[in-house]
Amino acid sequence: MTLDFTKLDGLVAAVTVDHVSGRLLMVGFMNEEAWRKTVESGFVTFYSRTRNKLWMKGESSGHKLVVKEIRTDCDQDALVITVEALGPGVCHEGYESCFFKRLDGGAWQVVDQPAYDPKVVYGG
Amino acid sequence: MTLDFTKLDGLVAAVTVDHVSGRLLMVGFMNEEAWRKTVESGFVTFYSRTRNKLWMKGESSGHKLVVKEIRTDCDQDALVITVEALGPGVCHEGYESCFFKRLDGGAWQVVDQPAYDPKVVYGG
Repeated sequence: MTLDFTKLDGLVAAVTVDHVSGRLLMVGFMNEEAWRKTVESGFVTFYSRTRNKLWMKGESSGHKLVVKEIRTDCDQDALVITVEALGPGVCHEGYESCFFKRLDGGAWQVVDQPAYDPKVVYGG
Repeated sequence: MTLDFTKLDGLVAAVTVDHVSGRLLMVGFMNEEAWRKTVESGFVTFYSRTRNKLWMKGESSGHKLVVKEIRTDCDQDALVITVEALGPGVCHEGYESCFFKRLDGGAWQVVDQPAYDPKVVYGG
């Protein structure tokens, strides 16, 4: 289960996809420790580039991502992880997917409906 | 159509998804120039980290990726681009998707069937 962490300064991109809808939920990054922890725990664990630490997705919100299938690409420097999302959405802004903005006429437009109230989950 | 290129040393991750099947095809990276070129040309253009240059996907194989929809995430540091793939597959190893290997019993196993012969397209 080797991966190539050299191309991105110790990280690989990890894309999560919903196991039922096939919808792309979020893109995160893993270092080798986060990758090992994801496989061992069965919960998607990223490396937070802004906080410089491991980050099990959902550790504060409870919206964890249960690993169903893991794929890698030809170069073994990216991952697609099919997941069961615990909770209504993965995005801290209240949406099912972090990709709720679409390019329309040269500007980003919010095109999804909120799935939950982030103030209730994360505090106001 | 602003993006945050600061978190990844001038790059954003760009995930391409097939417009009919919804299948995740490949993950690449774009710098600001590649991003602008993608929007202006309507063909997915990456920044090659190994070759340090812009790379319109399919420029040698003809297997270009026609942009159908572009989404960004909450942080505006990643893209999901829905595409029409010209040609049988995006992977230079002959597969429809670059993600043709699955983690099974702690090892990567090829689980997809080849979609074309890469020797015919790229030379032997």
